[in-house]
Order: sequence, then C-alpha cells, then structure tokens
Amino acid sequence: MQFYKTKTEKDLGELTASLLLGEMMSSNRVNIAITGGTSPVEVYKALTPKVKGTNYLENTHFYNFDEIPYRKEDREGITISEIKKIFLEPAGVKQENIHKLDQYNYKNQDKRVFDDGGMDVMFIGVGNDGHYCGNLPGTTKFGDWTCRVENTQKLKERELDEFPSKNINDVPDYYITMGPRSVMAAKKIIMIATGTRKKEIVKTLINGTVDTNIPATLLTLHPEFVLIADDDACSLL
Amino acid sequence: MQFYKTKTEKDLGELTASLLLGEMMSSNRVNIAITGGTSPVEVYKALTPKVKGTNYLENTHFYNFDEIPYRKEDREGITISEIKKIFLEPAGVKQENIHKLDQYNYKNQDKRVFDDGGMDVMFIGVGNDGHYCGNLPGTTKFGDWTCRVENTQKLKERELDEFPSKNINDVPDYYITMGPRSVMAAKKIIMIATGTRKKEIVKTLINGTVDTNIPATLLTLHPEFVLIADDDACSLL
Amino acid sequence: MQFYKTKTEKDLGELTASLLLGEMMSSNRVNIAITGGTSPVEVYKALTPKVKGTNYLENTHFYNFDEIPYRKEDREGITISEIKKIFLEPAGVKQENIHKLDQYNYKNQDKRVFDDGGMDVMFIGVGNDGHYCGNLPGTTKFGDWTCRVENTQKLKERELDEFPSKNINDVPDYYITMGPRSVMAAKKIIMIATGTRKKEIVKTLINGTVDTNIPATLLTLHPEFVLIADDDACSLL
Amino acid sequence: MQFYKTKTEKDLGELTASLLLGEMMSSNRVNIAITGGTSPVEVYKALTPKVKGTNYLENTHFYNFDEIPYRKEDREGITISEIKKIFLEPAGVKQENIHKLDQYNYKNQDKRVFDDGGMDVMFIGVGNDGHYCGNLPGTTKFGDWTCRVENTQKLKERELDEFPSKNINDVPDYYITMGPRSVMAAKKIIMIATGTRKKEIVKTLINGTVDTNIPATLLTLHPEFVLIADDDACSLL
Repeated sequence: MQFYKTKTEKDLGELTASLLLGEMMSSNRVNIAITGGTSPVEVYKALTPKVKGTNYLENTHFYNFDEIPYRKEDREGITISEIKKIFLEPAGVKQENIHKLDQYNYKNQDKRVFDDGGMDVMFIGVGNDGHYCGNLPGTTKFGDWTCRVENTQKLKERELDEFPSKNINDVPDYYITMGPRSVMAAKKIIMIATGTRKKEIVKTLINGTVDTNIPATLLTLHPEFVLIADDDACSLL
Repeated sequence: MQFYKTKTEKDLGELTASLLLGEMMSSNRVNIAITGGTSPVEVYKALTPKVKGTNYLENTHFYNFDEIPYRKEDREGITISEIKKIFLEPAGVKQENIHKLDQYNYKNQDKRVFDDGGMDVMFIGVGNDGHYCGNLPGTTKFGDWTCRVENTQKLKERELDEFPSKNINDVPDYYITMGPRSVMAAKKIIMIATGTRKKEIVKTLINGTVDTNIPATLLTLHPEFVLIADDDACSLL
Repeated sequence: MQFYKTKTEKDLGELTASLLLGEMMSSNRVNIAITGGTSPVEVYKALTPKVKGTNYLENTHFYNFDEIPYRKEDREGITISEIKKIFLEPAGVKQENIHKLDQYNYKNQDKRVFDDGGMDVMFIGVGNDGHYCGNLPGTTKFGDWTCRVENTQKLKERELDEFPSKNINDVPDYYITMGPRSVMAAKKIIMIATGTRKKEIVKTLINGTVDTNIPATLLTLHPEFVLIADDDACSLL
Repeated sequence: MQFYKTKTEKDLGELTASLLLGEMMSSNRVNIAITGGTSPVEVYKALTPKVKGTNYLENTHFYNFDEIPYRKEDREGITISEIKKIFLEPAGVKQENIHKLDQYNYKNQDKRVFDDGGMDVMFIGVGNDGHYCGNLPGTTKFGDWTCRVENTQKLKERELDEFPSKNINDVPDYYITMGPRSVMAAKKIIMIATGTRKKEIVKTLINGTVDTNIPATLLTLHPEFVLIADDDACSLL
C-alpha cells in the first residue's frame, strides 16, 4: 500500500490526474475502470484539458465498474451516463474505447475483461462506510465476482441519502457491480478520498485492519494499492 | 487465480520446478521465499539437478517466510535448517543469496524485503485447515504483517500431530511468520497441494469463498495467484 | 542480456522448455512467436509431454514469425506447417490459439500483434551468419517492421544449402519475415544456439559488438534478451 | 515506439512532468536517470511544485547518465551540479536518493545500476545531430556500456558552440557517459524534443531508419520508447 496526501481537493485532482495520465499513456492497450460521483470531479477537471484534442488516450479503454439501471426506463444507466458526462465526452474519448457494463451483460463482465487483456487500473472512490464500487457493507462478499445486488429497503433509503432529489419509488430494485474478486484481479488500484466526511475510513485504511464489514479494507492487501487523500480526509491521522 | 492440475505428485514436482525456474532465471534480481516441509520434496528433487553447478540462480535471492526457533538451543531455526538441507545446499546456492528470517530480525523483515526490491515470488504449501506459512486459523489476522505468534497449548498439540517424534516440552513457546499482508504484497504466489489429505482445502480454494477462518482463501484474491494440485488433492472436484 | 550455458543439446532442450513453460503458464493471455527448424527439436521434445492433455497453455497464443510460401502450390507455408508438425499438433494446441503469418496478411502483422496485446516472447534460433527469423545479412535493416523479402539468386542458393533435398526451381521468389523492429518490440526474446556450427556467432554475441552486417547482434541490446547455448556452441568462449 | 505531440514547450513540460510523476510515485523503489541542459527546464518547472514538501518521491532514486568533469578543479562535475540546481535541490530530493556518476566510479556504473535493481526510466533529451547522453556521432558504438570518451579537438569545438561562455582551454579532455547498451537496458526511455532546431532529428526518429551515425535512432527500437515533442520540433512532419 502506498499512501499520498495532498493539501486540497484541487491538489488531489491535479496529482491524481498526473498519475492516471502516467498509467494511460502507453504504447500498449490499457484498460481502466473509472468512477463517477462527486469525488473525482477535480480529477477530471484537471485531466480533461490535458488530453482533449490529443492522441494521448488512443490506447486507453474505459469501463464502468458498476451500474444502476433506471427503474422504469430502458435507457443507459446512471453510472455510465454520468461518467460520459463528466469525463469521457468532454475528453473526446472515442466510442469504441468505451466498454459498458450493464444489467444485460454483467454475467460476462469478468470473462470480457480477461479477454481484453485484464484490467490494468481500477480508479475508485470510497465511502465513509467503506463501500467502493457497489460493494456496500452487507451486500457482496470478499470472494464475489461481478454480480447483481438486490436493493433492500435499507439500501434504497441509503441511496436516497446520497441523491435526495430522488423519490424512493424511482430507486431501482437492483444494481450491478464488479465484486471484490474482480477488483482485486486488476493490476493496480488507485483510490481517492476527499473531505472531512471521509476521515474515519481513511484512518481505518491506514490503520491496517481488514474487516469483512468494511469492504474497502480488503483492497489495502492488493500488491499495487495506492490511496490518495486530501488534508480534510486525513484529519484523524 | 490460475489453477493447474497434474496427474501425480512427481508430475507436480516437475511442473512446479519448471515454473520456479522460469521465475528465477532472470537478468534482474529475483527475491523468492520458499517452503520447507514434505510438500515440496518432489519439486526440489526435480529442481536441484537442473540448477546444480550452473549460474542459473546467480540473481535469485532466497528467504524463509517463517521460523520455529529451537526451544532450548540457540542455533539456526527449524525452517531455515530444513530449507538448506532439502534445497539450498544440494543446489549450491551461495551463502550471500540466502536471507534468514528469525526471532531476532523479524520486526525488520517487511522493511528489509521492501529495501531488497520487494518479494517477487512466494512459493508455499497449504494445510488442510487452510494454513500457509505460520498463518494458522485463529492466529494471525488478514491485516497482519510479519509477526511473532505465541504457541498456545492447542497450537503445541497440533504441532505434535505433524511431528510426532517431538516431545511437547520441546515445542517452543512461539514462532515467527510473514503475515497475510506480507504475503499478499508479493508480486506472485505459487501454492502447491498434494495428496488426498489436501482434498477439502483444494475444493474450498476452487469454490471461491473467502473466509477469515480459513487463511489461505484470502490468497485466491491476489492478482497473480497460482494453485497447482495433483490428482489426489483434486479428488473432491 | 542474460546468458545461460548447458552441457548438451538435450539439457538445453530441458532448460528452455522450463523457461518457456514459465512464460506460457499465466493467468493472462500470453503471445509467443516460436521457431521451427532443427534447433528447437530437443526443446519441443521436452515440452510436449509436459503440456499434452493439460490446460496449461490455454491462455497461450502462438505465432510464426516468418513464412516461406510454396512456390507453385497455394497451401500453408513451410514454416507454419513445420511448427504445427513438430510442436503445435503433438502438444494439442487449439486451432483458435494459432495465428498464422503468411504472404496474404503480413502487411497487417504488426498492427495485429499490437491489437492482440503485444508479443510477450520471441522464441528464436540464430544462424552462424547472425540471421534470425528471415533477417539475413543484407536483407532487412535494423529499422524494418514485418516485410516481404525478395529472394535473390544468392539467397536461393543459400537456402538450398540448408535444405539440400530441394531443387532451386522450387525455391520461392520471396518470403515474409517479422523485421528487427517487430522483434525488438516484444517484451522478451529467448534465443537458443546449439552445436559447433554456431560457435562463431555465440562468441560474437557474447563479445558485445553490434554490427549491422550481423543481424542478431542487435537483439543483445533488448532489455530482456536471454541467450541459451550448449557446450558445443560455446567452444570458442 | 510511442509518439506524443504537444502544442507548446510549456505544454510539453506539463505533460512530461505528469508522465514522470506517474513513473516515480510507486510503492517500489524506482531508479531514474535524468537529464540536465535547457530542454527539460519546463518539465522541472512543472514538476517541482507538485513534489516539493511531499513524500511522493521517497522511493525514487536519481542518477546522472553522463558527466563532464571540470578541467582544473576537483569538484562535482557539470552535469550533476546542474541537475541538482535545476531540479533535485528545489524539489527537496534527499541526498541518499541521489547516485552520482563521475570519472572515479564510471567503470562500476553498469554493475551498480544492476545491483540497485536496474534502471527503470531514462529521461533524456536529444540533439539535432542525434546525440543523447554523451553518445555523440562518432564517439560510442551501439554495443558500448558506460565509458569514458576522449574529447577530440572537434568535440571540444562543438562543446563551445553549446556553451559559448567557455574558453576552449577549459573544456576537459574527456567525459563520461552511459553507453547505448546501458541506456537500452533500462525498462523505459522517455525522450523530449522542443523547438525548431530539433525538427530534423524528430523527423528522422519518426521516419524509422536506424543509422549508426545518428545515435538516437537506435533508441526507437526499445520496446518502451516514448518520444514527446512540441509543435516546433514537429514542423517537418
């Protein structure tokens, strides 16, 4: 495990953008699964102008690692839509370099990634409860591959906390996620944490305990795990 | 996880010797921690004549990953003595390429391995209870680095089962082992299992559950984990 | 450059088979271009029984690195036919893991290899004139990719020396070969040399001069170049 | 070979700084040889504020790849002094992470680099005559390791062109450089070229010919060679 601290969220964005660029610019194909959400906003803000209009990412292939389907509509899921909006489209990534995971193809995800040469980088965030991707406490187990998780009433309520604009009736009954086993199979994991609401999980990750109830603690055992956190997220260290 | 099956224990010895040779013959320094015990006997039997009197292992550095000190005598521990006897000496490995772990230096083991460039390969066996190195059920936790484990009465009795020639009063009060975190930090893990007494653990490892009570199940999550088992060890598959 | 010496050609076969097995048994796809001819006979003799009837090579994909088309017949070329006969078929390699290079597809070879994830290993022989693959002195240049080489009268006569059973009218007017640039782009190069007729080239390679008139001398500059030679081939060292 | 183009020299500085950061921030030791001179000024200008006062480079070890000793004074050579001044000191790199090459230790340089785990990255510039490090046309040969080059009258005059403030009597009689073989042994080579005076060499490198009279053309054959050039340096493409 390698741990890097930055002063501000903006610094974290700059630093992480540099690291990702270093991973993605390669003479070989690079497969990377990237996160949506609010955590990576500064990362993509720093990264986009560096790559837009260039050939730097021509060998980089992008994957989403989880998907929340819209409940009543058969359209592109929430995660991939968001990733496209906040990074892939502004950065000008070619359509053929984007590999969607969704409710229709998830059973084939791990085999597909293998056939594509394996996942090189997982770029992920972490929740203060220790969740990453769709691996929430009490859902997947350490040994699980990509799977479908049923949304219990409790999970639905949790989701409303994160997206208050939603109505509980719109929260879908399930979602898709790469499991702990799929994530650990990647060659490198880059995790970011920003803001004071991440301070407990950062402390837990640094502290070194691995706990089945705190999913992200497993990832600290990966031989190429990098955690980048800003000062606020490090306030308990 | 990659799984290979061989017909006999002798075949497993030949195959594993080939894999190890492929890892060890390199133009760069290679660090490898190797197992003692009865499991690797056929491996070393196949490997020794291939390397004896050659320069093939000149860049390979050897480590023991656990140590059981003699109780009343201040001499080289049981593990390193055994590894020397069954492989390092017959193979003619140079003294300066052997890096002992013992009760005196274990607190520095993880730092030392890092300074040496990291562990490239862990070559280990597995017990039917899922133990590997000195990580027995109920002793170390998934998050532990190299540490000292106190031998409870129960552990001592277990040890007598494995080495019936011993007297319980000779069993030392503690032993040293690289912990799960140290092992997972290696670039590759090669595990062997032979004989019918390993059939349950092989089934468990293949099955894919990760269980804190069965230490070796964690290792299946390492991105470069190889399990080699002979037909007898695979009899429940 | 890493140099390994073996006593006999049979020992070289055993050792090289081990090294190749170590490269080919992987949880990721492995691409390897392999040589035909007489040099690797002992290698394939050692390798075949180790892998036949197993899943060990399921992730390994095989390529030929040059091709001599039959002159008047539109059938599979000399190289691929030979490789199939002496290794791929006896070893039971699946048809879908064999990727032919020939006079029809050679212009796309370098792009295809790139799209397949890059060449992991080039397993090649060397001529006493320093040729490797179809890179004979006076044909390709160090900077060349895969290309078609026209067979001059001199080249044709040279070929007759190697295959005396042939008639010069049967020697085709051209052949195909991966060029020096294609070979250097691989992640690793394993070269074998056996017998006294290779003693000058082995001496030249060890000696360290890089000479545009002796094609193989370039390969010694590759960061992962391994040369394995038997005692006879080392008789000038 | 991977080729990246940037608009301005400042953009090149930003991009290269990102790439280097991606290489240098690692949980393992990283060995990198870095260039002095005017070409990398924008790179170091972008890199320094990113790493100053952080632990990001704690596992990175720095080397100079050539050295011009002062003629009449026994003090640190021109190259290492310059690298320290323009990067290592402003960036706050620890003394123990700096590994000097000079006229006293150059015979041991290649062995030392090997013992240190090998060179991971060569970060170099290129002259319009195709020179890199101290490998000027007509000095070292493709097969040379680190060596001492005698400064002929012609070389001395050339040096005066680059540093017009000097007096020819101050130009030393020799200099030290890692040779082509040492540079090719690195795992990755990152080369930068800026400004119109580099336009011919950039064209030559892209064009693909390998010519013993234009030293840098060899490096395009390295399996991990990256060339970054700004618009001005690309004006002949």
